[in-house]
Amino acid sequence: MTVREIAALTGAEPRNGALLDHVISNVAPLDLAGPSDVSFIEQPKYADSLAETHAGACLMTERFESGAPRGLIVLRTKEPYRAFIAVQRKLFPESMRPVSMFGADGVAPGAIVHSSARLESGVTVDPGAVIGPDVRIGAGTVIGANAAIGAGVQIGRDCAIGSNCSVTHSLIGDRVIIHPGCCIGQDGFGYIPGKAGLDKVPQIGRVIIQDDVEIGAGTTIDRGGIRDTFIGEGTKIDNLCQIAHNCRIGRHCIIVAQSGLSGSVTLEDYVVLGGSVGVIDHITIGKGAKLAARSSVMRNVPPGAQWGGIGPAKPLKQAFREVVILERLARRADDPEKQGD
Amino acid sequence: MTVREIAALTGAEPRNGALLDHVISNVAPLDLAGPSDVSFIEQPKYADSLAETHAGACLMTERFESGAPRGLIVLRTKEPYRAFIAVQRKLFPESMRPVSMFGADGVAPGAIVHSSARLESGVTVDPGAVIGPDVRIGAGTVIGANAAIGAGVQIGRDCAIGSNCSVTHSLIGDRVIIHPGCCIGQDGFGYIPGKAGLDKVPQIGRVIIQDDVEIGAGTTIDRGGIRDTFIGEGTKIDNLCQIAHNCRIGRHCIIVAQSGLSGSVTLEDYVVLGGSVGVIDHITIGKGAKLAARSSVMRNVPPGAQWGGIGPAKPLKQAFREVVILERLARRADDPEKQGD
Amino acid sequence: MTVREIAALTGAEPRNGALLDHVISNVAPLDLAGPSDVSFIEQPKYADSLAETHAGACLMTERFESGAPRGLIVLRTKEPYRAFIAVQRKLFPESMRPVSMFGADGVAPGAIVHSSARLESGVTVDPGAVIGPDVRIGAGTVIGANAAIGAGVQIGRDCAIGSNCSVTHSLIGDRVIIHPGCCIGQDGFGYIPGKAGLDKVPQIGRVIIQDDVEIGAGTTIDRGGIRDTFIGEGTKIDNLCQIAHNCRIGRHCIIVAQSGLSGSVTLEDYVVLGGSVGVIDHITIGKGAKLAARSSVMRNVPPGAQWGGIGPAKPLKQAFREVVILERLARRADDPEKQGD
Repeated sequence: MTVREIAALTGAEPRNGALLDHVISNVAPLDLAGPSDVSFIEQPKYADSLAETHAGACLMTERFESGAPRGLIVLRTKEPYRAFIAVQRKLFPESMRPVSMFGADGVAPGAIVHSSARLESGVTVDPGAVIGPDVRIGAGTVIGANAAIGAGVQIGRDCAIGSNCSVTHSLIGDRVIIHPGCCIGQDGFGYIPGKAGLDKVPQIGRVIIQDDVEIGAGTTIDRGGIRDTFIGEGTKIDNLCQIAHNCRIGRHCIIVAQSGLSGSVTLEDYVVLGGSVGVIDHITIGKGAKLAARSSVMRNVPPGAQWGGIGPAKPLKQAFREVVILERLARRADDPEKQGD
Repeated sequence: MTVREIAALTGAEPRNGALLDHVISNVAPLDLAGPSDVSFIEQPKYADSLAETHAGACLMTERFESGAPRGLIVLRTKEPYRAFIAVQRKLFPESMRPVSMFGADGVAPGAIVHSSARLESGVTVDPGAVIGPDVRIGAGTVIGANAAIGAGVQIGRDCAIGSNCSVTHSLIGDRVIIHPGCCIGQDGFGYIPGKAGLDKVPQIGRVIIQDDVEIGAGTTIDRGGIRDTFIGEGTKIDNLCQIAHNCRIGRHCIIVAQSGLSGSVTLEDYVVLGGSVGVIDHITIGKGAKLAARSSVMRNVPPGAQWGGIGPAKPLKQAFREVVILERLARRADDPEKQGD
Repeated sequence: MTVREIAALTGAEPRNGALLDHVISNVAPLDLAGPSDVSFIEQPKYADSLAETHAGACLMTERFESGAPRGLIVLRTKEPYRAFIAVQRKLFPESMRPVSMFGADGVAPGAIVHSSARLESGVTVDPGAVIGPDVRIGAGTVIGANAAIGAGVQIGRDCAIGSNCSVTHSLIGDRVIIHPGCCIGQDGFGYIPGKAGLDKVPQIGRVIIQDDVEIGAGTTIDRGGIRDTFIGEGTKIDNLCQIAHNCRIGRHCIIVAQSGLSGSVTLEDYVVLGGSVGVIDHITIGKGAKLAARSSVMRNVPPGAQWGGIGPAKPLKQAFREVVILERLARRADDPEKQGD
């Protein structure tokens, strides 16, 4: 891409004298960039890196221009990071979705596809993948090496199912990305006390995953007990999360790594859970609510709320006061002169 | 099943005029149920769903009967949920244990079984599964697609080992269910400082899993260091739990998702760990003790105790007071008029 | 090994009259040991076990000698555990690194190796493993059953990659151990708000793993966004940890199970994270710092610090005061007579 093309793509404005025909072939952070790389700066803490960068071009807001080294092609934009991502997406279209790890096309040798499975044309199945009876897979989808797709699963078009995933009892939309090592559709965790220990509660629901969902490596999603477990359109789930049976996750939610939802939790649309958030069962988190990393959600969260803190999650302002007051009390307890303070 | 058969199975009493020959073919929650479904109600918060349900029949306690819509077959019982589960177990016997995801019988094509392994008759091995030397597998057991069973592992009868599981150095009883993606029997995490970094401490124990244990997807259980790691009869472990080397878990325990036991932890019988509980090493949790979700267990827990709370786990009553007092102090700190309160 | 050889290996001093030709073939804890086992004692709480042990020999410090039963061969040493591990490492050399679970040698039947992959002599590939194009694997390395190694991955010598691992976009040094079920090299979790939901941020970095790293079962390590994710020499990571994109982990760190590092976290050399520690993004933890189990790291940690506690991690001394003061306040709040205390 030339600088001219980058400017056209992003709407960034080349500073006077910029070499519009200079060719950019890669992206890099300021400290690692070379002459054929474009970089970006948005935060003052990287000003030193800007001064010393060897990047060919850099996207930045006006305020950083005076700090640009001589010879750097400056591209002025109000949203440097967003423009940078746009260039990156253009330069690396194949990074938008995992591809066959075997460089394969069609059903690779060593893949086992049941005779009753129906694959549209343009499906790639990597070696060692196992596709069970009555599975349906849409055009353009890639099934990774040693993935196991159980009987009756339906997967839409242009999906990527990672290597070593296990998927059963699931209906999956289009453009869904499931990273390696996920387990989706197995029994939920349900028992009742019986005569000689715990009796298993049948788990007869499914997992429904809508279009454009992305699910991180090693995440587990149990199928529903008597309802379905549901993941709404565009929702992104990070690595090693646990979604229990009957959860209902809305559209465009973000669930950061190692978070866990107990059974029958509802997340309305646009909810954000920071890393390692835990939610007890039958809770509803309202539309657009944000939970800080490590929150323990023990009661319903209203729409738009920002909660977190020590112990049961609560409004962040209150949570912050608790942290401060506890620190203050501990300091006083340690200092006899301040006891009466 | 007819309503008459459901009544006979559960001991529920059909209300006057119930159509005893009405056929029930499925179960459903009140809001999703149709005429051929049986449902149940046990909690007042679902009274609205009861009033509007299209279910054919509903198991309930006497108190809900007046709220049942006309035409609903009412089955009176003191334990509606338990009766409902009994019907479900009768209608879906195959849901009691995962089956071959390939609909296979015997050793499927694409499975690799070492010549020295001994499989009883009636063992199912899904495609891609690898069974190592000297493995023993009992009748009726299903080994999932792409599971890997290492040298010398013994698995009893009527077990289900999920797809993409890795099992080594383990002795497994009868009717054990291990869901997909579990890693069982690998090295525990042990090192001592050496001359040039950390030296590995040999891990020469095994994993012993007794009858009727169930283990959730993605859970990891390390083999013992110089003892064995032990999981007692009937214990149920949820998804993404970590059981470190030398742990000794008693019978009929419940360990909810994302909990972690450090090395050499002992759980006596009937212990319950809520979700995401962490236990430091060499702790003993007494018989029947219950730990609230997210507890951090830093010292031994007496039998029968109910512990949890902020920071190191402690009796729940005390833990609750701490939460309340901290909230109160933070409120006061924010309100000058209450400072002297 | 004879007792004489154990003494020579460890520098332990046999007590007068010890049978130097007695043969030791195994190691065991005091309570399980028999005549051909060597055991050790280092902590007074095991004194009863010492008195009753049937071990053939026992490594101990001088203080325990008087408690040794008649007939036990006593080996005096200042570091009994270290000596015990030395014996164990000598007796079980094969426990230093996982071996083929199929007892295989070379490329096993059922393994799929791309024609452009280059394996040095002495590489073992277990059945079902899939090796993609342009992969390089060094001599002595074992690739476990059903592992999937993606295009262009380079793995050094004498490594062990566990069964059902997925490895892509990675460069791996020598003597690296990766336990089963790990996912390494997949996309990091990066999005920006777009017109119709979240747009994916390309992840074009790699994972670099230096020599002598060990990674526990089920751990996930995302590749870098525009930098590389980096794991320094000799670092040991336990099961079910999450390492996000762009993290930079130093040499000889210890990361205990279920810990999670958000994006762009830096761990300097010799950092220790206890179990289930969480670190928010762009944090630096200084050289040799230790974080207690379950810490939530919300700001940079200075070198050598020992932090932990309730809420955001802080120096342990301060954290401990907070726990104590909160307990005290809760007690007082419950006891009207102490309100004015």
